[in-house]
Amino acid sequence: MNALPLLRIGDVLLVSIQIELHDELALRFQRELAEKVADEGVRGVIIDISALEIVDSFLGRVLHDIAATTSVLAARTVVVGMRPAVAITLVELGLSLHGLRTALNVEAGLRQLGIRRLDVSGEAR
Amino acid sequence: MNALPLLRIGDVLLVSIQIELHDELALRFQRELAEKVADEGVRGVIIDISALEIVDSFLGRVLHDIAATTSVLAARTVVVGMRPAVAITLVELGLSLHGLRTALNVEAGLRQLGIRRLDVSGEAR
Repeated sequence: MNALPLLRIGDVLLVSIQIELHDELALRFQRELAEKVADEGVRGVIIDISALEIVDSFLGRVLHDIAATTSVLAARTVVVGMRPAVAITLVELGLSLHGLRTALNVEAGLRQLGIRRLDVSGEAR
Repeated sequence: MNALPLLRIGDVLLVSIQIELHDELALRFQRELAEKVADEGVRGVIIDISALEIVDSFLGRVLHDIAATTSVLAARTVVVGMRPAVAITLVELGLSLHGLRTALNVEAGLRQLGIRRLDVSGEAR
């Protein structure tokens, strides 16, 4: 089970990180996500981290790199679902996740991307 | 990391199973999902299994029980993203996933639920 599903819903890709991203998996995830963003021309990427009890500097850097890459590819990234305890630890560690957009949950993340409605009719695509 | 995020988007709950569901986690997942379906009055549940390389009779039963429970709670469940190799193995094992709705991907699953548009505006909720 070495894959992170990239779920397309309307104009966005949704990813739920539930497993620890070791180096190799993180690189593969970044590459696959960038390719899918470019191939499918999505407007936004939502990364849910509500399953994670720990966000370390490595994951922080991965998330930052993903946001920077998708930005170059003309899509925006929002990280959603961070647990309060994770936020506290991040601040204690001095990790600010600078430049990363965050939101409380998937729907708030979509609204932050300016998306109020996801069309999944499959027409004109 | 012992939790399966239940992501609400508009009228549906989306779950991406990426880790092996041992007995305890499966029971907890079923209970949490049923509670969230009842509390939030969603119309449908989409369970993505594209990360799974193996679907055994235990997981088949869990998925079946979830679909039956959500059905009683007036929501419908669609299992999406099954890998072709998993489908072949299921047939070889004689597991038909009887009574379970399936679809190729999240968007096809939503359309099967009769949902063509997900409203995430947050109004009137």
